[in-house]
Amino acid sequence: MRILGIDPGSRITGYGVVATNGHDVGFIACGTIRTGDETDFSHRLLTIFRDLSEIIRTHRPTVAAIEDIFINHNPRSALKLGHARGAAVVAAMHHNLDVFDYPARQVKQTVAGYGQAEKRQVQHMVRTLLQLSSTPSQDAADALAVAICHAHQRLYGR
Amino acid sequence: MRILGIDPGSRITGYGVVATNGHDVGFIACGTIRTGDETDFSHRLLTIFRDLSEIIRTHRPTVAAIEDIFINHNPRSALKLGHARGAAVVAAMHHNLDVFDYPARQVKQTVAGYGQAEKRQVQHMVRTLLQLSSTPSQDAADALAVAICHAHQRLYGR
Repeated sequence: MRILGIDPGSRITGYGVVATNGHDVGFIACGTIRTGDETDFSHRLLTIFRDLSEIIRTHRPTVAAIEDIFINHNPRSALKLGHARGAAVVAAMHHNLDVFDYPARQVKQTVAGYGQAEKRQVQHMVRTLLQLSSTPSQDAADALAVAICHAHQRLYGR
Repeated sequence: MRILGIDPGSRITGYGVVATNGHDVGFIACGTIRTGDETDFSHRLLTIFRDLSEIIRTHRPTVAAIEDIFINHNPRSALKLGHARGAAVVAAMHHNLDVFDYPARQVKQTVAGYGQAEKRQVQHMVRTLLQLSSTPSQDAADALAVAICHAHQRLYGR
């Protein structure tokens, strides 16, 4: 099973693809979709949709895992993040991937053993767990972390 | 020019298509996309994307006009609405439509002459302006109103 992890954002969307055979989790690909240079917000959403579509066609994941967005106190940023996350969910669904949501706390608990783990801890643990030769960027690491979280969920249940 | 107006919502998305020859604005189609029965939020977003795609293929609009979402004080509902609006924007952009945003106040001002007009006034004026034989539903009327707003914007500028 190949899992596409997505960490959506209106400026940077992280993605990570892992494979699992039921025992181990292996690294396939990761990276970021940068949309911050585009002045028009609608074009940013299209870029998220199109780039994720391309990534899905290339790496052929069968499911997608997306971190639940932390609801902060600013409705304006919640609205923006909602747009970006909506574009990402539609890209995955449109390519027939099942989409699973995971709270950030569960993702951190899974990869770092601690629900309040810092970003750098997540980066470090993702590198270790997937035996990567270099540390992925924060957004790519977050995307890989949610993909790993889904793999573990499938293996060990809740 | 054919204009697709969209009033996005996570349960009901209104749409309306109008045509303008540079002088008059004529009715082409309107309706609603209902997603409230689907329990899974991701499936709702896919339905918005797919149904709008089908409407675009059927009626061949060249631009889309979408009302800016009113930012209320609830970040959770802003996040949900953001998802729905993101799915709608991506559907339009993916089919090569230019997307224009209009504040609700401007839409109401255009169709009802008053930025604080009530929903029923908007419904009534949309029916009158487009010479419809029956009153469209609230969501369809809001979608037609934003399409009319874009047509007037093109004709008379700001």
